[in-house]
Amino acid sequence: MSKLLAVGTVAFDAIETPFGKTDKILGGSGTFVGLAASQFGVETGIVSVVGGDFPQEYLDMMNAKGINTDGVEIIKEGKTFFWSGKYHNDMNSRDTLITELNVLENFQPVVPEYFKDADIVMLGNLHPLVQVSVLEQMSKRPKLVVLDTMNFWMDISLNELHDVLKKVDVITINDEEARQLSGEYSLVNAAKKIHEMGPKYVVIKKGEHGALLFNEGNMFFAPALPLAEVFDPTGAGDTFAGGFCGYLTKTQDVSFDNMKNAIIYGSNLASFCVEKFGTERMQELTEKEVKNRLQSFKDLTQFDIELS
Amino acid sequence: MSKLLAVGTVAFDAIETPFGKTDKILGGSGTFVGLAASQFGVETGIVSVVGGDFPQEYLDMMNAKGINTDGVEIIKEGKTFFWSGKYHNDMNSRDTLITELNVLENFQPVVPEYFKDADIVMLGNLHPLVQVSVLEQMSKRPKLVVLDTMNFWMDISLNELHDVLKKVDVITINDEEARQLSGEYSLVNAAKKIHEMGPKYVVIKKGEHGALLFNEGNMFFAPALPLAEVFDPTGAGDTFAGGFCGYLTKTQDVSFDNMKNAIIYGSNLASFCVEKFGTERMQELTEKEVKNRLQSFKDLTQFDIELS
Repeated sequence: MSKLLAVGTVAFDAIETPFGKTDKILGGSGTFVGLAASQFGVETGIVSVVGGDFPQEYLDMMNAKGINTDGVEIIKEGKTFFWSGKYHNDMNSRDTLITELNVLENFQPVVPEYFKDADIVMLGNLHPLVQVSVLEQMSKRPKLVVLDTMNFWMDISLNELHDVLKKVDVITINDEEARQLSGEYSLVNAAKKIHEMGPKYVVIKKGEHGALLFNEGNMFFAPALPLAEVFDPTGAGDTFAGGFCGYLTKTQDVSFDNMKNAIIYGSNLASFCVEKFGTERMQELTEKEVKNRLQSFKDLTQFDIELS
Repeated sequence: MSKLLAVGTVAFDAIETPFGKTDKILGGSGTFVGLAASQFGVETGIVSVVGGDFPQEYLDMMNAKGINTDGVEIIKEGKTFFWSGKYHNDMNSRDTLITELNVLENFQPVVPEYFKDADIVMLGNLHPLVQVSVLEQMSKRPKLVVLDTMNFWMDISLNELHDVLKKVDVITINDEEARQLSGEYSLVNAAKKIHEMGPKYVVIKKGEHGALLFNEGNMFFAPALPLAEVFDPTGAGDTFAGGFCGYLTKTQDVSFDNMKNAIIYGSNLASFCVEKFGTERMQELTEKEVKNRLQSFKDLTQFDIELS
């Protein structure tokens, strides 16, 4: 069976949206990536760190979904990373209310032996030096390395970010971050510049406006499924990335054409993620629901124009 | 041959973008609709009004493209409608600098006899009473009536707008206007409410974020083609509408499935419109260019996921 290794946060979130608010619930980029990838029946290993306050039942839930948590270090005397945020009415912007790094502050990822030959590696949004250290622990060059990052790392460790970018195949980044990283307003030009920094594939996430995949002159676009209600956008980007990586890991085909399908699978899973708070919807998601909604994606985007 | 009747403005524009600025050049919604529809070899009649200052060469150019301008009234002692605007750096927002209604102020559209049995009627963005008066002049109910409108008419003549909405099949409207008209933030919910006002088909234009077509539970989405450079967005929405109507007029098929193709054709033509100032790009556009770019749209959006 093919293997996916994902490094990311496993965390507590407290979320407020126009629809309500939560106490501390399960969150974190590694968690969302793992839950999305678990839809594909591949072996997914998460590398992360939590504190002694992290409930065993969350790890049990992940394990029951086939997610390997051997790489999730538990620091008994420490506290789990905690993020709290409040979404505005348009759901496209949010304010961070609280960020407590806690055990994440000195996170030294350790890749379990079994995942050192993973086919695909997803480097979640963490310090570039943490991302590099995961790559250095691999026993062979993965078939594909996917990196997620954000403006924060561009602000405080741009040089280290450039170093890790040279070592990855795919970058996933949102539109504003792509503009910041490249200094280009047009996303077409931004992708070109980011190609030159290393990644052969550039995925630009535009939230409710979909996602673009660029690869040296080729482009593909997947819309976000228009929904009557977006309940909580938290984790949608990570779910997208997890679906993308999970599908590629399962199919073992990292061609541009297959990445198109991966982008659609990622968008499809993200459309579920936003329907409930936190990981709730992803925990209960069934294969049949996923398939039905893939049909909606086809209906939404496929047309029949013959070009002679 | 099938006929398209379009009522709209034929005007002067003066445009400033980050790439440069123009003197008074040819503009107007009717002009852009006509130029887009001329790509399909259908008989397009424009109903509009201009002043004595409007150059005959502009009308000659339109006629040479097969656009019938018999319905463009020339008021010799009057001045042509003039709009001037300046786009911001992101090209998504603009300031109107000058609006001189001139001959448009007392515009009484007269539909030429030959176009009173047009198959498709496009009611451009004008006062709802002007739009209604065009419909009342038709000798038979057109196969499809498409209406464009804007927030301005919602602000000053909402009741009249609701009256005309009851008489049309398709409304094209941008996302903010759809929200204003419906009072719903979600575009899915907005489309539902607007359906209830009359139009069976709701087209929501999202500019660089593409366009959505809604029809009682069915949805279709076309992205805008990502471009390295958007030179001047003026007329893109009208070009989109003209391509949509032109394709439907040519194919004489107003089913939802064929409207998907029409939306793609409209988006395709709009992607050319923005490449130069005003109507310049649309005037020189060739069939071959249109076809090549349709292939780009297919590459951008079509994928191959089999659902058993």
